[in-house]
Amino acid sequence: MERKKRMCEANAYMIDGENKTLVMESVDIIEPEGEKLRLENIFGEQKFIKARIHSLAFNDHQINLVALS
Amino acid sequence: MERKKRMCEANAYMIDGENKTLVMESVDIIEPEGEKLRLENIFGEQKFIKARIHSLAFNDHQINLVALS
Repeated sequence: MERKKRMCEANAYMIDGENKTLVMESVDIIEPEGEKLRLENIFGEQKFIKARIHSLAFNDHQINLVALS
Repeated sequence: MERKKRMCEANAYMIDGENKTLVMESVDIIEPEGEKLRLENIFGEQKFIKARIHSLAFNDHQINLVALS
């Protein structure tokens, strides 16, 4: 039986040591765009951030980013 | 109304130019572990890969990794 895959519902956070700041909810796409990351959510909204993807924890619906200096 | 968040069902691929190789299905966690990435799927299986997270495309259920030399 084929199981239909479900959409992800993950939020992107910027982490800085112990601190964690929500950057975007319900993120759908993250991809490099020049020196930045382009984030797009399920509503089609975009953000461009100078960061890299640090880690993913889908059990907590979290995408963690770290700033690039 | 609060909407319950759904689990992600994303697969991790290693990209190399035009080529794309499936590394792990139903990935739950990706995090740095020393010089490698630790991937864990929803079944608790683990892989350690010398790579970084390149991009995410949840609309296609894809996590794209690139190898670190």
